[in-house]
Amino acid sequence: MAMPPSTDPRCLLPLSLGLFQGALLLFFALFITYDEPSVQAEDANLVANRLYSIFPFFQDIQVMLVVGLGLLLTFLPRYGLSALTHNFFLLNFSTQWALVLQGLLHHFHHGQVQLHLHNLLTAEFAAVTVLISVGAVLGRTSLCQLLIVAACEVPVYFASEWAIVTHLGVLDVGGSITIHVFSCYFGLGLSKALFGAARQPVHPKAMPTPDSDLLALVGTLILWVFWPSFVAVLCQPGDAQHRAILNTLLAMSASAVTTVVVSSLLDKDGRLSPGHLQNGSLAGGVAIGAVADMAVPPVAALALGNLSAVACVLGFRFLTPFLVRKLALQDQCGIHNLHGLPGILGAAASTVAILVASEDTSGSRFSQVTPVGVNASEVGVGWGGDHGVGRQALCQVAGLAVAIGSSLLAGLLTGMVLRLPCLAQPPEQLCFDDTLYFKIQDEAESLGLGGTVEEAALALKERV
Amino acid sequence: MAMPPSTDPRCLLPLSLGLFQGALLLFFALFITYDEPSVQAEDANLVANRLYSIFPFFQDIQVMLVVGLGLLLTFLPRYGLSALTHNFFLLNFSTQWALVLQGLLHHFHHGQVQLHLHNLLTAEFAAVTVLISVGAVLGRTSLCQLLIVAACEVPVYFASEWAIVTHLGVLDVGGSITIHVFSCYFGLGLSKALFGAARQPVHPKAMPTPDSDLLALVGTLILWVFWPSFVAVLCQPGDAQHRAILNTLLAMSASAVTTVVVSSLLDKDGRLSPGHLQNGSLAGGVAIGAVADMAVPPVAALALGNLSAVACVLGFRFLTPFLVRKLALQDQCGIHNLHGLPGILGAAASTVAILVASEDTSGSRFSQVTPVGVNASEVGVGWGGDHGVGRQALCQVAGLAVAIGSSLLAGLLTGMVLRLPCLAQPPEQLCFDDTLYFKIQDEAESLGLGGTVEEAALALKERV
Amino acid sequence: MAMPPSTDPRCLLPLSLGLFQGALLLFFALFITYDEPSVQAEDANLVANRLYSIFPFFQDIQVMLVVGLGLLLTFLPRYGLSALTHNFFLLNFSTQWALVLQGLLHHFHHGQVQLHLHNLLTAEFAAVTVLISVGAVLGRTSLCQLLIVAACEVPVYFASEWAIVTHLGVLDVGGSITIHVFSCYFGLGLSKALFGAARQPVHPKAMPTPDSDLLALVGTLILWVFWPSFVAVLCQPGDAQHRAILNTLLAMSASAVTTVVVSSLLDKDGRLSPGHLQNGSLAGGVAIGAVADMAVPPVAALALGNLSAVACVLGFRFLTPFLVRKLALQDQCGIHNLHGLPGILGAAASTVAILVASEDTSGSRFSQVTPVGVNASEVGVGWGGDHGVGRQALCQVAGLAVAIGSSLLAGLLTGMVLRLPCLAQPPEQLCFDDTLYFKIQDEAESLGLGGTVEEAALALKERV
Repeated sequence: MAMPPSTDPRCLLPLSLGLFQGALLLFFALFITYDEPSVQAEDANLVANRLYSIFPFFQDIQVMLVVGLGLLLTFLPRYGLSALTHNFFLLNFSTQWALVLQGLLHHFHHGQVQLHLHNLLTAEFAAVTVLISVGAVLGRTSLCQLLIVAACEVPVYFASEWAIVTHLGVLDVGGSITIHVFSCYFGLGLSKALFGAARQPVHPKAMPTPDSDLLALVGTLILWVFWPSFVAVLCQPGDAQHRAILNTLLAMSASAVTTVVVSSLLDKDGRLSPGHLQNGSLAGGVAIGAVADMAVPPVAALALGNLSAVACVLGFRFLTPFLVRKLALQDQCGIHNLHGLPGILGAAASTVAILVASEDTSGSRFSQVTPVGVNASEVGVGWGGDHGVGRQALCQVAGLAVAIGSSLLAGLLTGMVLRLPCLAQPPEQLCFDDTLYFKIQDEAESLGLGGTVEEAALALKERV
Repeated sequence: MAMPPSTDPRCLLPLSLGLFQGALLLFFALFITYDEPSVQAEDANLVANRLYSIFPFFQDIQVMLVVGLGLLLTFLPRYGLSALTHNFFLLNFSTQWALVLQGLLHHFHHGQVQLHLHNLLTAEFAAVTVLISVGAVLGRTSLCQLLIVAACEVPVYFASEWAIVTHLGVLDVGGSITIHVFSCYFGLGLSKALFGAARQPVHPKAMPTPDSDLLALVGTLILWVFWPSFVAVLCQPGDAQHRAILNTLLAMSASAVTTVVVSSLLDKDGRLSPGHLQNGSLAGGVAIGAVADMAVPPVAALALGNLSAVACVLGFRFLTPFLVRKLALQDQCGIHNLHGLPGILGAAASTVAILVASEDTSGSRFSQVTPVGVNASEVGVGWGGDHGVGRQALCQVAGLAVAIGSSLLAGLLTGMVLRLPCLAQPPEQLCFDDTLYFKIQDEAESLGLGGTVEEAALALKERV
Repeated sequence: MAMPPSTDPRCLLPLSLGLFQGALLLFFALFITYDEPSVQAEDANLVANRLYSIFPFFQDIQVMLVVGLGLLLTFLPRYGLSALTHNFFLLNFSTQWALVLQGLLHHFHHGQVQLHLHNLLTAEFAAVTVLISVGAVLGRTSLCQLLIVAACEVPVYFASEWAIVTHLGVLDVGGSITIHVFSCYFGLGLSKALFGAARQPVHPKAMPTPDSDLLALVGTLILWVFWPSFVAVLCQPGDAQHRAILNTLLAMSASAVTTVVVSSLLDKDGRLSPGHLQNGSLAGGVAIGAVADMAVPPVAALALGNLSAVACVLGFRFLTPFLVRKLALQDQCGIHNLHGLPGILGAAASTVAILVASEDTSGSRFSQVTPVGVNASEVGVGWGGDHGVGRQALCQVAGLAVAIGSSLLAGLLTGMVLRLPCLAQPPEQLCFDDTLYFKIQDEAESLGLGGTVEEAALALKERV
């Protein structure tokens, strides 16, 4: 095995990962077990039914993250293999790391940890924040750097999620605030600290082609289809979950149509921009997360879908160029437009929903907004008995502030760490290029540069 | 925001869509609510179980329509983005429009409408007819024209479905007649009225490439995998649904193998035609719809799968060219071969199944064919008590006639509307081309036409 | 219909397939029925719940085999249509053939056969062995030859599976031994007997391109996501199934990360090999099959995932070239690395798990390893009461030996049959080329070989 010399920064990745896998094995050996199998038949039945009620949702989410999000990132035509692989690798590494952190936290309170599909799911949610954040620096970072991002972001996410959901009692079943807003500003902070004030013109390899746009659109469609499972998986089974699914479906349908309207209006020939479609169609799903299981009327879900798509598309057209000009802020995938703006809209919508619900129905006001059957421990302090409607509304705003503040700060700090020279940041001319990370035939070689037409055509024939 | 001048026909699309979204919001605000949440724990359990019994089917159908059908339409190599986007947009717009119509109809009878996943599903079924119909004019119509198609076809579908299922009591759980036959002849009527008598030679951009054929085949395989969910989702849970799934699996398996046989026999070198595979493999799924939940023996499902694949492939080879020659009938995707012929076969099979079942078992004849536990209201008048076996068989034939007649007429009328000059029908040389609808880099530019070999290769290198 | 002359070997395929479809219809007409519908409401409920507990798993497996595996095979850039189609065709043909064989076996014992989704599932498992085996000869075999492989392999699989599971009582819920090891050595035997001792250099068309590698990686990711359903579908519902899912998720997550580590270490520049990722990420899923539902601790699943990925990647790097050099053994897809080595590791792990469990807990030792609620008939002789722990461990080893021996022998014999000249083996220069099996425009034609730069660019423009 040709072990690279230890001075080469690239051996940092396999070595540190190998160490991590060893530590993971040790940790699992010491602390993680499965439940004792149930002895009685009716218990077994209960376990089976619980599994059947979560597993289809879990699989949908896996498809979203591994296939859907992966394909969405292949819009960079020469960086498809890397985008897909880095996304897949980060999902796995971050989930493992989140399991360790979760396990440690749990262990200090309750001893041995029993592993359930539910643990894996919450660990995967922590991983999602990493996958979103690195979208801001897609194509300009090494796998080694991405590993550091994951290592830093997951614990911060857990702390922020604890502060927002458990401590403040914010209602956010679909993660608009805790996942989308958090990961967006973490990514923006990261990008700012990593790339500093200098901004180059658009990289020639960063332009999508029709083929790469098509594949990325397929990714969007896969995300669009399975999004309701992401929002509703942690809802209380029954009416709340049913409502969360319907609200998500309505919001995303409204987003899809609105994106076509706005993108078409922004072009003088009425043409659509593939990037708008790839992102705007999903904006409703991001925004609905905070209100999905509240008893808002269906029209609210539709309106939120419309609004968030408008915000997302206008963000791409006006805000992103503005941020580049004024702040030299690099956001490769436009995560601020897809996760930041709609996430903030979702937080605002949840605040309004709580205030409106309390005015509408003074008698049974709590049953209108509180998810049915939700127990206080699950939403933290709970807002029904302990503090009034106004305070719950305030909490939603405070939660948003915590998410933005903590993520921006942590992102900036992480970005500074990423500037360490040993992390093998790719040089500018090798950005957005699979050949840096993959052993593939260089396309220039097989094209027979400088040869005759016949040679070029023959070479092309071989290559295609 | 650069608003195009109002004389430009292209601003019709965003303006009318914007108005529609506004009207949709108003309509939802006035008429649509969610159920009151259930108060008792056992009710909540019931709601949860009902959700778990329909949601996986619903997700499967979403994947079929958004990803599977979308990819199937990308067989046009330079029209992939448009095909995928138009399909996605039409699905959303048509579903919203169907929800409005359903809601209005329901409202006049019962007041406020409670939204369930079931409503969304039936609205989506209405949208399916639009997606199928526009296959006949794929690549030659503007998004504006497609919008008009959806606006016209959905109400006609509801009327036709009411006449066939509710009034005539036709048994058609998988939509062979009500969805596939209906949408096929609507699309053919549309195409005939829109393009008239003149037929040009095949457009050079309408020829699939190996790459576009591959992607389209992936779409077919996705449709093939999830088709059982489409057929069985509305079945009575229990034996009927189990049987519907098995019948669909058998029919589609037979179709897949038969398509290889027939396509291979039709070529002098025994080679397969990608178009045959993309369509013939699905023919069994179309045909089985009308008999899926009847107590037909498994061999009938296999035979129907064989027959429908034969009909589909022979249709592509002989009938489509014949219709072009004799009627100048344009059918870009071959919907007549995939939806028309197998749908008619399915209707015929349901008639035969009803007649045979009655002869086989004079004593308990109804239990052989009627779906278990079906209640009269669901299949309309019901055919067990009210009218005899012969009459039910006649009804199936009458239902087929209604589907063909109403759709053909409505399609012709809609096609005439589409000739309005304000609808921005694309000129012949811009058909089948994404650049008309998308802001993408023109490939000719980046290819450096007229340059040296080096330039061309470099340009190509950038582009690939 | 242009029927090819009967001397042409290519008409063998449609003729024999047509005959088979006829025989299948006859067989189904005579022997296969559906259950009588349940009369009582609670029975219907039971049927419905049983369906809901298996159907989502079944659909996941269908996606894996049809879409995931199909795409994984498209890594050959000019053979994508053939790879996808042959895989799809073989799945259907082999499943039908397995249903016939199953039905015959059952019929001789119990008369009429009632078809359930469960029968289809076990028939599909038999088909999986064919799909894996032919990976060894991908691109160098005609559809006719593949048909013969399916015809021979399915009955041998049933015999071997009976010997291993029913007779020896081997525990192998996820098919590590019965499916993966068996099909691997069948494929290797096949390849050896078919191609003999002479080995040519690597075929120029057999080199993946970045685009074909990307599509193949998408296939891997789809397989990766749905693999837990494949392993767990036949588990006892309840704890065992839950554990099987978790074990599979852990093993595959460990494999994904380990593959990156090892592949990166093997390259002097630390780059990854797409082939390693496409296969190594799945190795954990193969290995975990034999122990998935045993009460092994979670750390064992992780470690098995690590180990199997290491074995798989090292296999690609060292063992495959070694086998080519020493044995002239051709293994196009590297099935020995993905299915052979990890499968053997899984068998070893199951032996160790049984021995360790018995030492750990002398009191309640059987409940630690035996799947909860498993009945003796299901795992054959059963190992709790009838024979001790040592004997069960021996059985696992014996089962592995039976799988390897029977498959290797049967594969060699089948490979000899494939050399029959009437089976239309493709000549070397037409290997790995879709144009042999599909009516598609030859790319060389459209490239305008020998023309001017302008012509070549124009032709290319049309083609892309």
